Order: sequence, then structure tokens, then C-alpha cells
Amino acid sequence: MSRFILKGDILYSETPSKLSTWKDGVLIVEDGVSKGVFPEVPASFANAPIHDYTGHLIIPGLIDLHLHAPQYAFRGMWMDEELLDWLNKHTFPIEARYKEAAFAEEAYKIFTQDLRRSATTRAVMFSTIHKEATIRLMEAMEETGLVSYVGKVNMDRHSPDILREESAQASVQDTIAWLDEVAGRFQNTHPIITPRFVPSCSDELMEGLGAIVKERGLPVQSHLSENYSEIEWVKQLSPDSANYGDAYDRFHLFGSEGKAIMAHCNHSPDEEVRLMKRRGTFVAHCPDSNANLASGIAPVRRYLDEGVHVGLGTDVAGGATVSLFTTIREAVQHSKLRWRLVDGELPWLTFAEAFFLATAGGGAFFGKVGSFAEGFAADALVLDEHGIPTPLMKELTPQERLERFIYLGHEGSVLHKYVQGVKLF
Amino acid sequence: MSRFILKGDILYSETPSKLSTWKDGVLIVEDGVSKGVFPEVPASFANAPIHDYTGHLIIPGLIDLHLHAPQYAFRGMWMDEELLDWLNKHTFPIEARYKEAAFAEEAYKIFTQDLRRSATTRAVMFSTIHKEATIRLMEAMEETGLVSYVGKVNMDRHSPDILREESAQASVQDTIAWLDEVAGRFQNTHPIITPRFVPSCSDELMEGLGAIVKERGLPVQSHLSENYSEIEWVKQLSPDSANYGDAYDRFHLFGSEGKAIMAHCNHSPDEEVRLMKRRGTFVAHCPDSNANLASGIAPVRRYLDEGVHVGLGTDVAGGATVSLFTTIREAVQHSKLRWRLVDGELPWLTFAEAFFLATAGGGAFFGKVGSFAEGFAADALVLDEHGIPTPLMKELTPQERLERFIYLGHEGSVLHKYVQGVKLF
Repeated sequence: MSRFILKGDILYSETPSKLSTWKDGVLIVEDGVSKGVFPEVPASFANAPIHDYTGHLIIPGLIDLHLHAPQYAFRGMWMDEELLDWLNKHTFPIEARYKEAAFAEEAYKIFTQDLRRSATTRAVMFSTIHKEATIRLMEAMEETGLVSYVGKVNMDRHSPDILREESAQASVQDTIAWLDEVAGRFQNTHPIITPRFVPSCSDELMEGLGAIVKERGLPVQSHLSENYSEIEWVKQLSPDSANYGDAYDRFHLFGSEGKAIMAHCNHSPDEEVRLMKRRGTFVAHCPDSNANLASGIAPVRRYLDEGVHVGLGTDVAGGATVSLFTTIREAVQHSKLRWRLVDGELPWLTFAEAFFLATAGGGAFFGKVGSFAEGFAADALVLDEHGIPTPLMKELTPQERLERFIYLGHEGSVLHKYVQGVKLF
Repeated sequence: MSRFILKGDILYSETPSKLSTWKDGVLIVEDGVSKGVFPEVPASFANAPIHDYTGHLIIPGLIDLHLHAPQYAFRGMWMDEELLDWLNKHTFPIEARYKEAAFAEEAYKIFTQDLRRSATTRAVMFSTIHKEATIRLMEAMEETGLVSYVGKVNMDRHSPDILREESAQASVQDTIAWLDEVAGRFQNTHPIITPRFVPSCSDELMEGLGAIVKERGLPVQSHLSENYSEIEWVKQLSPDSANYGDAYDRFHLFGSEGKAIMAHCNHSPDEEVRLMKRRGTFVAHCPDSNANLASGIAPVRRYLDEGVHVGLGTDVAGGATVSLFTTIREAVQHSKLRWRLVDGELPWLTFAEAFFLATAGGGAFFGKVGSFAEGFAADALVLDEHGIPTPLMKELTPQERLERFIYLGHEGSVLHKYVQGVKLF
């Protein structure tokens, strides 16, 4: 039985709106799982080794529910375009290059090394349509020590020749071959079924993927109601569906079988939200991407109020950075702009609520993850605030320091990272 | 006569929407002023020493038209509040502490050191109401080598006892004493008249400040049409003014005498915009602050189209960072959200346009500043992109690299900075 103790200024979300704060607290870890946070070391753990980070903030690892690993290659560029143009002009041609395994290996090495050093402890990501490149990405992710879901993307229509699978059948067969090849190979890196979005997937392909999900009990990730033009297009392509969400749900790809993550949900109609709630679908809120691609601002307050699962996604490369501190900040900022410009009835997100989204909110997709309450996975970050000089009026509370870190995280750094009780650095 | 040459990948705004790009170009500097950018060293400068930064981006220094130096002490905190609450609960009590010169000196030392290392070459800033602290700030700014305007703030009403001057007369007298004390003392640090905003300044005070501006030909900075509650308040306080802008203009504080910068202008009515245009008033657009304080999004496209002067401001500590790269990025992002959520008739800002705002747009307040065209001040940044790993598909153009740097600037760094031809680091 492995036991140790993390000591420092510990914070985690007790509820979506309330932080639990422990100045000079101790987090007890046993076999990779939290036994809770205490003001002093309990007698029964008196002999456990202490990792003493007194004076440092300790928070749960951050959870990225949505990103595109191959797009890390061109983050921060070509942002003058809206979604569909951006996909066709820039994204698809570059994703096509991941057909070359050597290129994929090099690109994914840079991506996974950066992700390992970031504040992210768990991530759910798209690869490309390419089986070999997807396996290279899974191998590289496994080496990081992070926990992840990686999806080989399915696309059999409305995509350029260079990035379209030959047929629905070929796409399904390739997916099964991929799943068989990676089955049991990795400890922390799991497959997830990934229809890119309704426009790129024929009904036949969706049906085949739904069958795989049912048979193997796998989770699903895709995109939903991101952009008005995209939503219109889906209406034309899937006239029998009640809404965009239903176009997945009718094929068991919306959470009725395995868990499902839908990225964005900026413009979901009421009945789609009700369906999300009924199915336990997770919303991956991606504010950076939704601003960069001029998509809009998701009504996250509503999702929280109605009990829809919601977490955050960086959505690289619609989003420019893998830093979830930026995503947390922008979730707060954009909720304020939404309150001011769209709907004053929905109060903006507090920083505590946006922090919840990035930890326990998204963490729920992985099980008991994103909190230090007893029984949760011991995923933890030790933060270094030395790079954030602030002439102080008074001693700051841990909560004030955490808010400051979220706004200025790029000036500080992640000093240590633990995943499931294992210290990565 | 001092001459030298900067060599590298040089970019600057030729027009608000067009970048001038020189791969392996040379910028000729003579007596602190640009003689233009050329593909090769002209024969007449063949003997000038070359500062060779081949492979690096070289851009004009960035201009911050609006920030509050004393608020650097608490940037990135207490962001759950709207403007007026945030001022009363947090900002005013801390600004009051700058009465102690020792505290001011320490706080301003940290602020000015950080600003010196940032991408900013010129800034226009508020101090507090305190004469001594303002002089400490001017001394510290002068040491940085940056060019700045610093304003002792005027407040004689609707402010807490701890941060209110005794009377209009006392405020005016203190302002004159400050101006006399700093006259001729600094080379790069200039005074600017600074009524905080209409709610904090009585008519008598405004009249006194207007007289100083007329007499001494000094510029003015203040706040305008930032937040709906504030605008309502101004209507009540100044019922005879046609609009918020007119409440300054009637006292010669809106650009009719010295130049004027008005921060925010998020909700300016048509006649206020016309007045801004007529007076040549500069808008300091502060997207980070306007999101953090839930104020809204300024119609920057309109200001550009109508020929109103507009630049960017970080508005520390409504904004959390002095990095204008963040401000540029958010100017683009928020213009996209405005296009999507408020007014689809006003096209969003391209990254080239937001870059213009941060350079030549704001630079115009300082004269021929913010460009490398002939006759402009030789304010330049040499950028270091090594911290931004991108597995490349192809060699990136200087323009693609500049956009990437704007989105990921915190991962790169400013390698060298020149102001008026002087190398600061």
C-alpha cells in the first residue's frame, strides 16, 4: 500500500460555486486516491512521507475535454476566418499530412511534451482519420503519464479527397482494426469513438459507429451546435432529425450507450438541451475557440443550473493554447460579455465556478476525478507564483492567490504534477 | 550623428489593414528616427554598424494608451465584480495607500521594472491623487527609458474620504504644484491632466483643470462611456451636458485644447462619436478590462471607419496584464464576439488591424510613432520565438509568425527593445 502526504495551501471545488480552502493543509494519498484534506496529519498516517510544499498552492489537475492534437502544429495562426472556411482552407489540408507516420510522430512528440508540462492532467482528444498516426499519438500520450482518451476520426463525406475515408464501410473497418490493435496495450490511454461532426459522416457510417459503441461500451466525442452555418448545414443533411443532437442520438452516439462529450453547444435549442440532460451528455465549453472562430458564447450558466454536465476544452487549434488557465479566464470573461450583450438573466460565472468546470466539472467524465474529496483520484498540481510579482497590501488568501494565478498563470508555472498519485515532475 | 541598422524579418502597419513585410530587411536608424526599411543596405549607409537579428521578427514598439499604475498591486484579483462595486470595494481603498511615499516607491518599482521588460515602449497612465507618489512614479518611469505620460489624478467628490481631495481649489492647487515641481525634470516622462471621470470631479474642479490645459497646452486623459450604470450616473450629475463626452468638452477637456485620450467608449451615442471625431479625441480600447468588468465591447470597426483616432490600453488592473500581445488578441476576439452577438454589420478586426491599433493607432498620440516609415521614431522590438514550438508544415511567412506571436506571446519573449534608437536591453 503506497501512502504519502502533500502539504501546502490546498484548494478544490466543494460544489460548483464553493471552494474548499486549506491554508497549510495536508492531502492524504493512498494508492493513488485521496483520503481527504485535513488541517493536520491524522494519527493513522503519522508515518507517511510528507511532500512539503508549504507556501505553495496545491489544486486538482486540470481536465481538457476537447482538443485536436494534430492541429497543435498550426496553433495561433490563420485566425481571420470563420469555422467552415478555416476547416477547408487550413485545417483539412494539414490534417491530411498525418498520413505520413514520420510526420505524425514528430508533430505528436512536440505536442505531447508540451501537454505534459502544462497544467493538464487528463485530456480527451481528436487525432485524424489515420490509424497509424492515431496509434503513434496514443503511444506518445502513454509516455506522458497523463490520462487520456484519443479518437481516430471518422469522415466519409463532405471532406476533401485528401482527408476522406473511402467509404462508410472502410471507415468502420479501419476503426475496428484500430480498436483491436490498441486493445489492452495502454494503461492510461483509452480509445474513444470520434465521428468528426454530422456533415462529415454519412448515416451508414454513423450507424456503424453506433454499433461499435453498443457492442464495446465505448465513449463518444464529437461537435455540436458550434456555429450557425454549420447548424443550418446539418438541418439540410439530416432533415429527419429533431435537432443536431438528435442526429447523433438516433445512432446511439449521444450518451445513451457509452458516455458522450459534445464540444461547444453554443446555440443548442431547448429540446437539444433537454436531450443532453436526459442522456447525461457532457458539454465541452471552449471559449477561446468560440471567440477565435467567431462562433458565439455558450450559455454555461444555464447548463450548470439545469444539471447538464459541463467542463472546459482548449479546442486547440481553434483555441491557441493548451493552457487551461487561459480557458478558465476566458470562460469567466465571455460569460460576462454574454450577460452584458445577450442575456442579463443568466448571471456570469464566478472564478470559482469556472475553476469547478476545469476540475470536477470535466473530471466527472473520468469518474471520481477533479476534486480532493475522499475517494477522488490524486491528480494534483503544485503551483509556483514566484514569477507573479505583486506589491502586496496585505497577506493574500489562498483563494485570492488562485484567482491571480488563473489570470496570470503564464507568468507563474506548474512546479510539480501528480497523476493518480504518481509524481510526473 | 548616430546611425545604425537593424536587420531581420521586419513588419509594420502601412495602413490600418495592411502590413508591410520585409523578409531579411534592414531598418535604417539615424538620430533615433527611422530612415525607412529596405531590402538591402543603401550605399549611403554602407558604413553604419549592423545589429544583426537575422531570423527574428522586428516590429514597432507597442503603445499602451491607458493603464492605472497603482493598480498593478492587485492585478488579477477580485474579478467577480462590476465597475462601480469594484472601484468602491477594492480599488479606492488600495489607491488610498499611495499616500505613503515609501509604499508608493516600492509598488512603482515593481510595476516599472515589469513594464520595462514588457513589449510596451510608450504608455499613458494614471497615478493616484497623491502628488508625492506621482512624482515617485515619474522618477521610476524615467529610469526605464520608456516614453510616458503620467497623470496625478483629480477627485473631489463621490469618492471615499480616504481618496478625496479636500476641495476643487485644493485639487487644482495641488495639480499646479505638481506641474511646477516636475517641469523640465524629465526627458521622456511627461505630465498629463487627469480628471478621474465625471462622477469624481465637480464642475468647479473641471473648470480649474480646463484652465490649466488651456494655459499650459497639456494633454488630458479620462474615462468615457465605459459602463451603463456609470453613464446613467453621469446623466444625473451633469444634466445640462448633451452627452458624457460633452461633460468634458464644455471644460476644454476633450481635445479642443491639448490632445485627449478617453478610455473605453463602449457605449458612446452617435453625437458623442461625432464630437470625438471633431475634437480628434483618442479612444483607448481596453478589451481585457471591458470583459473583466462586464462592461461590453467597443465598436472599434466603426471608429476605424469613421476616422476616429483609436489605440489599445491594457487598463491594468481592470485588465490583468501589461502584455499588449494579450490586448491585441482580445481586441480581435471580442470584435468577433461583437460581430456574432451584437452587430453583424460591423466586420470583425483582422489581426493586422488590431496590430495597427497597438502600434501606429495609439502611437499617433505621441507624434510620428508606431511605424517604421521614414521619419517615425525608432521604437522597435526584436522578438524571440524559440519558446513557441510548432512542428511546421512549411516555412512560415513573417506575417504568420507575427500572428502566432500575438496569440502565444507569453510563450515567446521580447529579446531586445529600442526606444528612440536607444537599446534598452
